[in-house]
Amino acid sequence: MALRSNLKILTTCMLAVRRPVVLENSCSTHRKYIRTYTPNLTVQRTADLNSFVARTHTCGELCSAHVGQEVALYGWLQYQRHDLFVVLRDFHGLTQVILPQDEKCSQLRKMLSEASLESVVVVKGTVIRRPPGQDNPRMSTGEIEVLAKEAHILNTCKKLPFEIKDAVKKTEALRMQYRYLDIRSGQLQSNLRLRSKIVMKMREYLCNLHGFVDVETPTLFKRTPGGAKEFVVPTREPGKFYSLPQSPQQFKQLLIIGGLDRYFQIARCYRDEGSKPDRQPEFTQVDIEMSFVDQAGIQSLVEGMLRFSWPEEKGPLQAPFPVMSYADAMSSYGVDKPDTRFEMKIQDVTSQFREVQLGYVQETLRKPHGCVKAICIPGGAKFIKRKELDSMQELVKQQYNQEVVPVILRADSSWKSPLEKFLSAKLKESLTEAMEAKSEDILLFAAGEHIRACSALGKLRLDAAAQLEEYGVPLRDPTAFHFLWVVDFPLFLPKEDNELELESAHHPFTAPHPEDTALLHTDPAKVRSQHYDLVLNGSEVGGGSIRIHNSNLQRWVLQDVLKEDVSLLSHLLEALQSGAPPHGGIALGLDRLIAIIVGAPSIRDVIAFPKSFRGRDLMSNAPDMVSAEDLQQYHIQVIPPCTESSGK
Amino acid sequence: MALRSNLKILTTCMLAVRRPVVLENSCSTHRKYIRTYTPNLTVQRTADLNSFVARTHTCGELCSAHVGQEVALYGWLQYQRHDLFVVLRDFHGLTQVILPQDEKCSQLRKMLSEASLESVVVVKGTVIRRPPGQDNPRMSTGEIEVLAKEAHILNTCKKLPFEIKDAVKKTEALRMQYRYLDIRSGQLQSNLRLRSKIVMKMREYLCNLHGFVDVETPTLFKRTPGGAKEFVVPTREPGKFYSLPQSPQQFKQLLIIGGLDRYFQIARCYRDEGSKPDRQPEFTQVDIEMSFVDQAGIQSLVEGMLRFSWPEEKGPLQAPFPVMSYADAMSSYGVDKPDTRFEMKIQDVTSQFREVQLGYVQETLRKPHGCVKAICIPGGAKFIKRKELDSMQELVKQQYNQEVVPVILRADSSWKSPLEKFLSAKLKESLTEAMEAKSEDILLFAAGEHIRACSALGKLRLDAAAQLEEYGVPLRDPTAFHFLWVVDFPLFLPKEDNELELESAHHPFTAPHPEDTALLHTDPAKVRSQHYDLVLNGSEVGGGSIRIHNSNLQRWVLQDVLKEDVSLLSHLLEALQSGAPPHGGIALGLDRLIAIIVGAPSIRDVIAFPKSFRGRDLMSNAPDMVSAEDLQQYHIQVIPPCTESSGK
Repeated sequence: MALRSNLKILTTCMLAVRRPVVLENSCSTHRKYIRTYTPNLTVQRTADLNSFVARTHTCGELCSAHVGQEVALYGWLQYQRHDLFVVLRDFHGLTQVILPQDEKCSQLRKMLSEASLESVVVVKGTVIRRPPGQDNPRMSTGEIEVLAKEAHILNTCKKLPFEIKDAVKKTEALRMQYRYLDIRSGQLQSNLRLRSKIVMKMREYLCNLHGFVDVETPTLFKRTPGGAKEFVVPTREPGKFYSLPQSPQQFKQLLIIGGLDRYFQIARCYRDEGSKPDRQPEFTQVDIEMSFVDQAGIQSLVEGMLRFSWPEEKGPLQAPFPVMSYADAMSSYGVDKPDTRFEMKIQDVTSQFREVQLGYVQETLRKPHGCVKAICIPGGAKFIKRKELDSMQELVKQQYNQEVVPVILRADSSWKSPLEKFLSAKLKESLTEAMEAKSEDILLFAAGEHIRACSALGKLRLDAAAQLEEYGVPLRDPTAFHFLWVVDFPLFLPKEDNELELESAHHPFTAPHPEDTALLHTDPAKVRSQHYDLVLNGSEVGGGSIRIHNSNLQRWVLQDVLKEDVSLLSHLLEALQSGAPPHGGIALGLDRLIAIIVGAPSIRDVIAFPKSFRGRDLMSNAPDMVSAEDLQQYHIQVIPPCTESSGK
Repeated sequence: MALRSNLKILTTCMLAVRRPVVLENSCSTHRKYIRTYTPNLTVQRTADLNSFVARTHTCGELCSAHVGQEVALYGWLQYQRHDLFVVLRDFHGLTQVILPQDEKCSQLRKMLSEASLESVVVVKGTVIRRPPGQDNPRMSTGEIEVLAKEAHILNTCKKLPFEIKDAVKKTEALRMQYRYLDIRSGQLQSNLRLRSKIVMKMREYLCNLHGFVDVETPTLFKRTPGGAKEFVVPTREPGKFYSLPQSPQQFKQLLIIGGLDRYFQIARCYRDEGSKPDRQPEFTQVDIEMSFVDQAGIQSLVEGMLRFSWPEEKGPLQAPFPVMSYADAMSSYGVDKPDTRFEMKIQDVTSQFREVQLGYVQETLRKPHGCVKAICIPGGAKFIKRKELDSMQELVKQQYNQEVVPVILRADSSWKSPLEKFLSAKLKESLTEAMEAKSEDILLFAAGEHIRACSALGKLRLDAAAQLEEYGVPLRDPTAFHFLWVVDFPLFLPKEDNELELESAHHPFTAPHPEDTALLHTDPAKVRSQHYDLVLNGSEVGGGSIRIHNSNLQRWVLQDVLKEDVSLLSHLLEALQSGAPPHGGIALGLDRLIAIIVGAPSIRDVIAFPKSFRGRDLMSNAPDMVSAEDLQQYHIQVIPPCTESSGK
């Protein structure tokens, strides 16, 4: 009995972490029940998980309704307790298997109790009710156990580098080296299964409900102008290379020009960014394009799709999503992907500082776009230490070349700040009031060029929130999903290396805002675009635009504004002259979206076989050397770094 | 009235070719109707094609039920008749638009009648009944026309390189250069839409009905042993390359070892074969893998999936599919992918030839596997000329080093053949009878090694069938779909360049046939495998196997039989030791399958943007040059062919 109780605790613990794997209410009487998805959609039976195989049930579905049935279970040995019982695991759950104690079953007992854990076995036996008081309500099969009659070891398991339990800590490098073992963990199984389910629902929404056509586009293509981040693929034609495209952008526009009307694809995309944390050299986007659509049309399509595919257990999604202009996002959050789950917005205090006799403030305000901005960190004085404040200031100085001055509101609401002596009591009071600051808050002030000051404070807003949360201050509800559309981006931005030249804020196919067409030839830097970003909890999860469908405008943007070599895109320009309908679309970053939905810290947790941040597959050791002989058919040879004329 | 009649004929013609584009019964009263897919599946509304856009209807859906309604249509100008009417086209159909003849509409009339064909327009107007007798029953909108009230040209169209009509012949090179125009054709629209629909149904079957998990696997991987046809992708690590895998084989096995149980993926695969007709450097397979499954399980899964996703208009699919052993396929059809839509099977006439005093026959029969085989081409004498017969003989001599001797049965059933004088009247009679030959048939005899003689006759069987069909003899029903499983392949084959060494008949992960395990170490060349091919109308459309799940066996096959460097697969060998369940799977060639379903002559007709047979994208001109500077970050340089030490 003591043993049984121990097991009960053990399986309860395991179930607590394995829970997400359970696909549905798994008692087979439930499995036959007809479920309505949404009022106007489909009536659908749950999937049959035992079709085409010899098992009668999964390890997660037996319940008291099955008592007396002869069953065959296939699974992994998760736990052994002397020669009394074992626990069998599969993707669906756990089942307790009782070993018969009579002499003629000694062989079977020995085999199952001595096999190594994680061995693969088949057990045939009878479902029996657990003894009274032994039910485990937290285990899907907790009402029953299976009395073994026959068993076979299908494959043994050697000693593993780590135990298959979510609770067992292991380094990410080890997890990636033994990815096939990590995939057995409840968390990864759950993530991959939920991803598959969400994508399937997206497809049903697009294909079955709205007539979208799933079209596969090539991944062996040619370089796009400015495609410095595109992997190249040598071919057997000397000197000729394919490129792995960063998105199907050109193809989807060409499909629309081909009259396809509604295109979508769950598209593999490639980007060579060298080593960047939480980026992958290949990633997946939900790629959508439509004819005759405007910004509002794409937005409601995406809202509808996300609502339709949203996992029930994450609660309902409200739509339409809020919309914010790029200008407002920058002013209030200092970033184009605001995390709207918490306040601490940036406030403009320029007017209050107009009369302050501080040299650098006055100097700033004389410059174009000069301003003074501030944020208030509620309760900051209680948690953020002087040292941390210093390093925050240092960070934005480095990153944005922006000075930030802190004010700590003492318990008596008096100011502790280098600013203190330059401001009148009245001004301080009015600032405290304007910022709605209370005692023990921290205020951060930044005087500078508008975008720079806001960006710096936006960065500090996020850092401060993370710090407060580290100290247990609940700021962002981890179960909340704040979607937000950010719109009215600039069409062009000054180039980083030469502010006199313009580059596309997003890509050169983005249409200008209809209200700004007059500015196009006179002041292109002021033109807003018809680009829209979808933001979720402060991460960009999608971006799209209404595209340019006029060939002359497209040529002018490429040639006259962006100074690109238009010959590389001559096929697109010609296509735009050939009866191109007005069109627009969007691409959602699927990896990031799923990661946020499941609450994973990294997109690596929602990708079956991710690369390390250095682009390596730690399991197979890719990338690898290729012999000079094999390279010869591609007419290339490796230049050892030491002989290269310039560095990387 | 004459004009109206002309148009009726014209649109009838257009509709005849555009028909396949029509997605469903398109009268909107029909669109609301609830349709049952299959008894135990889903009840589903047809897709809403007008959601998210400003059009009220597509160009293919208006009918008399809409008379009196104000509508907005968006489409392409397909046809103009003076300033009387125009025809508007979209992906869904055609609608006739009547131009109002009153003076105040002269502007609208002028605009629509003078715009270039294929211009993109929006027309708003009223649906009216066609005048009595003017209905066009072959046009989905043939009961009505739209009286225009307002119209705008959204984009004009320049003169196109070819008209958008299926009837207009154009070279494939031109079609590929202007692929976006070719996609406007009814045939390509229909192919791409049907492909999307079939794939969606496959997903529903796998995911929703049978609990398969859609998992994306990497395409940037490392070379597999013997992966000479894998494209390489240079990285920023000097000398290190990714490989684009030919299939997700390793990943799907690792997912199964990871306990995923049921995996599928519509997977992009890559193969660098240089220039091969009707091959593409990237292609798509329906990739499936399951735990705890046997050959019969995979076969019924695939049969179920194909039946479920099979287009209704192609008639029902019978299952289970017939099964044939590799040995029988070779004996009867001379090929491992028999076209069973017609007879003309290969027959063994060795016993009849045992006593024939012909030196080369006797010599052949003394050798191992020596035999005499024959096929009968019914009515061949009427259609196949002497010259054609000569070149058929020449072909197999070249290709298989196999002599074939023809017998022409004259109208009086007498033999015309070089064999004639060597055979007794009785033997000739017995052969004619055994072959069920009639007057004016042609018999082809081949004496030689079994596989060689069969292969030669198998090739001639197909060539003869094609020739007879060219003369109008109906042999293969173009609407028939003959699926066939070919099983019991050999596990290993002698290497082409060294008959003493063995190579995998399919791939090194294929499990041996359980009945042949005893032969594994004694006579591996005789071991049959658990590989199965799916053949459709004489084309291989799929292949799979039960895999080796025992690490020792896998190592023995790789190391001792195949002499491969096992270190390249050490991660897989280690995974097999870590609790790998028995498993198996299959991959279907999606492009080929869809091409056969739609009756397309090439897989290029079911791929949106195919490469030419030389691997070029004729539209964008990929592959292209990459500057030495851009290659430098990948530590490679191009070797001009003239400086290469050895040829290609």
